Amino acid sequence: MLEVYGHGGDVESAALRYGLEPGQFTDFSANINPLGPPPGMLEALQAALPEIVRYPDPGHRALLSMLAERHGASQGAICVGNGAAEIMSLILLALAPNKVGVVQPCFSEYETLSRQFGAEVQMVYGIAERDYRAAPEQIVKLMASSDLVFLGQPNNPNGVQYEVEQLRLLAESAEQQKTYLVLDEAFIDFIPAERRQSLLPELEQYPHVILVRSMTKFYAIPGLRLGYGIAHPQIIAAMRSKQVTWSVNILALRAGEISLQAGEEYVTATISAIAKERKYLASELGRLGCEVTPGEANYLLLKLPAPWTAGSMQEALGRRGVLVRSCAMYPGLDEGHIRVAVKDRAANTLLIGEMQLIIGGGEG
Amino acid sequence: MLEVYGHGGDVESAALRYGLEPGQFTDFSANINPLGPPPGMLEALQAALPEIVRYPDPGHRALLSMLAERHGASQGAICVGNGAAEIMSLILLALAPNKVGVVQPCFSEYETLSRQFGAEVQMVYGIAERDYRAAPEQIVKLMASSDLVFLGQPNNPNGVQYEVEQLRLLAESAEQQKTYLVLDEAFIDFIPAERRQSLLPELEQYPHVILVRSMTKFYAIPGLRLGYGIAHPQIIAAMRSKQVTWSVNILALRAGEISLQAGEEYVTATISAIAKERKYLASELGRLGCEVTPGEANYLLLKLPAPWTAGSMQEALGRRGVLVRSCAMYPGLDEGHIRVAVKDRAANTLLIGEMQLIIGGGEG
Repeated sequence: MLEVYGHGGDVESAALRYGLEPGQFTDFSANINPLGPPPGMLEALQAALPEIVRYPDPGHRALLSMLAERHGASQGAICVGNGAAEIMSLILLALAPNKVGVVQPCFSEYETLSRQFGAEVQMVYGIAERDYRAAPEQIVKLMASSDLVFLGQPNNPNGVQYEVEQLRLLAESAEQQKTYLVLDEAFIDFIPAERRQSLLPELEQYPHVILVRSMTKFYAIPGLRLGYGIAHPQIIAAMRSKQVTWSVNILALRAGEISLQAGEEYVTATISAIAKERKYLASELGRLGCEVTPGEANYLLLKLPAPWTAGSMQEALGRRGVLVRSCAMYPGLDEGHIRVAVKDRAANTLLIGEMQLIIGGGEG
Repeated sequence: MLEVYGHGGDVESAALRYGLEPGQFTDFSANINPLGPPPGMLEALQAALPEIVRYPDPGHRALLSMLAERHGASQGAICVGNGAAEIMSLILLALAPNKVGVVQPCFSEYETLSRQFGAEVQMVYGIAERDYRAAPEQIVKLMASSDLVFLGQPNNPNGVQYEVEQLRLLAESAEQQKTYLVLDEAFIDFIPAERRQSLLPELEQYPHVILVRSMTKFYAIPGLRLGYGIAHPQIIAAMRSKQVTWSVNILALRAGEISLQAGEEYVTATISAIAKERKYLASELGRLGCEVTPGEANYLLLKLPAPWTAGSMQEALGRRGVLVRSCAMYPGLDEGHIRVAVKDRAANTLLIGEMQLIIGGGEG
């Protein structure tokens, strides 16, 4: 198994395993904008490089002010972090839940971080018939016995959203039950604005709801780490009180500022490329006999045609320099499931071609 | 007061206060190598910039292997972190001490982080006659009533070391009492090897002793964040189990690798420049009527001649674009104390000249 640290995008492990350089892989195991960072980002960071001799602003003031403006939120309602993962850890440290609920299959860090910070984890399971969503009643019930519940929106690895009406119902239930509801919107920027199901515009009504955003996927800067949380100022203050000084590095702050100044063109081009390529990829994967979950994000969950398993396909592709994410270890999925990022046409065609060769040739 | 976030090096706050750009200050409030990063560092990072589209290695494998070789330690005895501050937070999360002891005056994060993660903090105080060192017996007594004790070596802000014989005594007492002793060696690289007082070569004898190292001061990369801890593999494993995945960004990892390949010339030039300039600075500050604590690090603690206070001097210098660290808020020091970094001759001369003008002119 390639996910020795529990995640995709680990090209260092792949390099050790398949004898290529980390940069030589076509990596479908991490879900990063195939267009790369916004135009001018690398040049601007290059100009900012000499700033690494100074400490980062411990108050993240420039970025915070831009984020507040973008979301029409107060600066006190936003916490900037060293990736969405740090934001999640700050939520757990700040709120210290005894029982955390997760809806499987989901991003493994919900469970890992919760246990890491001493919480007990309870699960409900989405089912194939609902594209691995859980029924809202299941989540309401999960919240009743949890202090905090994580929910991916869109969820990873299946890429599906809950409708905003369902989210409202969950948020109201969270308020009634005094259970925190963490909506992980790490990938929501890839969804066209008119289809995005988010409680952001009405967040002030729900002081127990916390939104987690990532800037590393859409703006293609996972190496720098940048994310933020949006929530009631009391929660944000508690999160900040648990944050280690200077945890967000100076280039991540600069990259965040540059990203928020990226033109509408880059944003639109990304969203439309993802929509178009996801459609292409889903259709071609279907032709190969895969069962594709109809997600809306920049990745697709699929079940390989028997007798292929995640392990055997990952290995066969890896030897050819192509990385996919095994989902065999996700509770609620099985050994036939993998996740692939939606990349650009050249890469997607390469993936389909290689899979066709492998499946056709019976290499296993 | 300039230290709105509790630390020096906050040029963003200074910029807001004095109406200059962050890069325009001559900053004596952060203790960074005045030679800047090793030759070739910025060029190498520039070449590495395109790697930000990939996740950092969650196992920090390349850097870990280099650090293990450099220190003759096993990889299992080293934890790489997002700055020394993250290392300290991981120590506290992993060992969960109820009572933490600190020797004042010292780096404020010992106390801040300890309280942040739920510990009670007890203090002993160094005294002026011992250059603000505590007596070893005081520290032994502090360890007796603490689960964990932090000690700066050299200590910040006074820059003095405990002799290795004293450290041995403390370490043996730590073992007997089952108290963890955290020796913060963030600035030890600036001290000539023959004067460095460290338990590193004999660390295996002391499974309750943890060394904290920073790479951001000596290699002048505070903006990127990089530090590590060295300790018994059981402690390191516990620390890693509390670390958020990818907390160390990819450019920090690269910068660490580049730093460890820096030639002996850069290291020697840094150490001799610091020794020479510290002597110059101490002598000139003495001429101005300051009482200078004879530290061995790349910064000096000094008491201003009356009626100057840290606040009035910081303000007068700040208006002239020169930043110093007020130490008025350090327990055990008083309103006349400031700390200044040892920088290059041009900067040091500027500081002395400005202070002379201010003190001579009576500006307050």
